Amino acid sequence: MTAHLYDLTLADGRRLSPYCWAAKLALAHKGVRFETTATRFVDIGKVAGGGFKTVPIVEIDGVTIGDSFELALHLERTRVDSPALFAGEGGVALTRAAAAQGAYLLGKMSRPMALAIHDGLDAETQAYFRASRERMFKAPLEEVSAEPEITIAAAREAMTPLRILLRGQPFIGGDSPLFADFLIAGLFQWARVVGAVDYLAGEDRIGPWFGRLEERYGATLGATAG
Amino acid sequence: MTAHLYDLTLADGRRLSPYCWAAKLALAHKGVRFETTATRFVDIGKVAGGGFKTVPIVEIDGVTIGDSFELALHLERTRVDSPALFAGEGGVALTRAAAAQGAYLLGKMSRPMALAIHDGLDAETQAYFRASRERMFKAPLEEVSAEPEITIAAAREAMTPLRILLRGQPFIGGDSPLFADFLIAGLFQWARVVGAVDYLAGEDRIGPWFGRLEERYGATLGATAG
Repeated sequence: MTAHLYDLTLADGRRLSPYCWAAKLALAHKGVRFETTATRFVDIGKVAGGGFKTVPIVEIDGVTIGDSFELALHLERTRVDSPALFAGEGGVALTRAAAAQGAYLLGKMSRPMALAIHDGLDAETQAYFRASRERMFKAPLEEVSAEPEITIAAAREAMTPLRILLRGQPFIGGDSPLFADFLIAGLFQWARVVGAVDYLAGEDRIGPWFGRLEERYGATLGATAG
Repeated sequence: MTAHLYDLTLADGRRLSPYCWAAKLALAHKGVRFETTATRFVDIGKVAGGGFKTVPIVEIDGVTIGDSFELALHLERTRVDSPALFAGEGGVALTRAAAAQGAYLLGKMSRPMALAIHDGLDAETQAYFRASRERMFKAPLEEVSAEPEITIAAAREAMTPLRILLRGQPFIGGDSPLFADFLIAGLFQWARVVGAVDYLAGEDRIGPWFGRLEERYGATLGATAG
C-alpha cells in the first residue's frame, strides 16, 4: 500500500521542510511507497481532516501521523524485516539526542536562509511566515538574515560534533544509516532546496556523508519539486 | 572479582579525567566493584605493563582495556543481566555521536579551566601538561584561560542541544541512564573536581539531570579523592 505525505512547499513547488525530508528518507529506507501533496504553510491546518499544526502529516496503514519521529517509530514497529531505523531501545533514546542536536542546528542554519525562504513563498504565505518567524527570532527577517558571513560561521561551528563523529564512521548510525542520519540530512537537503547557502561546500566529512546518502536515496532526494 | 582502574590525579589526590569518571560510572552501573590507583599524567606510560597513552586503563576479567568506550562495550558483552549501557546496536552507534558531542564540549569547557588544572599538578607534571596543552591549543595556557567570561559563554552555548534534549526526557539514555549519560556527566564531574568553573550553576535542566545521576551513583561521584 502507498502512504501519503503532506509536504511543505514553496510557491514554485519546491519541497521545503527538513522534517518532511527526514520522513521521506525514513519511508524510502523501509521500502514504503509514498505520494506527496504540496502543502502551503497556511494550509497545514486544513489537510488530512484538520487539526495538525506541523508537517509532515502522513497517512499510512489506516492512521494519520503528524510527526516525523512518530512516523519512524511506527515504521520500525510495523516493518521489522526492513532495515532498521533505530536498531533497539537505546537507539530510540539516543535518536532523541540527535533530534535535539538537529533542532539546535536548524535554528543556526535557518538565520541566513530566512529571508530567502520568505521570498520563495506566495504572498499569503509570506505574511504568515514573516509574522511567525519574527515572533520566533524576535527580530525582523531582514535583520535575521543580515550579516550572513557571521550567521553562516555560527552554523558551521555548530556542525563540529558531526564532523568529529564522521571521522570514525561513515554514517551517524554507524556502518549504515539510521533515522538519526535522516533527521540531520533533512536539514542539509532543506538548505539545498532553498539554495541561499551552500552548507555542504568545503565540508570534507559532511559533504561525502551526504553523498553516501544520495547514493542510497537518490530518487527520494532528487524529487525536490514533488 | 574486583576491577582495577588507573585514575588520573592532581597533586593532592583529586581525580581528574572525564573519561575515567565515565568509566567509573559505567562500572558502578554494571555493579562491578573496582579499586583505583592515583596516576599522574607523566606516569600513564609506565602503569599496567606499559604501552598505554591515555586513561582510563582498566584491568578486568584478565584483560587490560585502555579506553572508556571499549570498557563499556566489554561490560555490555560480559554483564548481559545488569542494566544496559547501550541497549542495542543502534545505541552503540549513536553513543559514538554522544562521544563526539562530548569531545566538542570537552574542548570548549577546558579553556577556562586549563590554567587551574596546571596549577593543581606537581612540578614535573606541570611541565608535561603545559607543553602538551599549549601544542593542542596553539597558545600559552595563560592566554587559553584568559577572558573566562567569553570562553565560559562559548561552553554554555555548546551545551544547548543537551538542554533541548533534557526538556523531553530525564536522562540522555531516556528513562534511565546509558553510557552516553556517563560520557557527558564525566565532563561536568571533571569540572566540579577542578573547581575553577561552576558549569552546573544556573542550569535548570542540566543541573537536575546531574543531580539524578548523583542520586544513583553518589558513592562513585563522591569519591573525588580516590
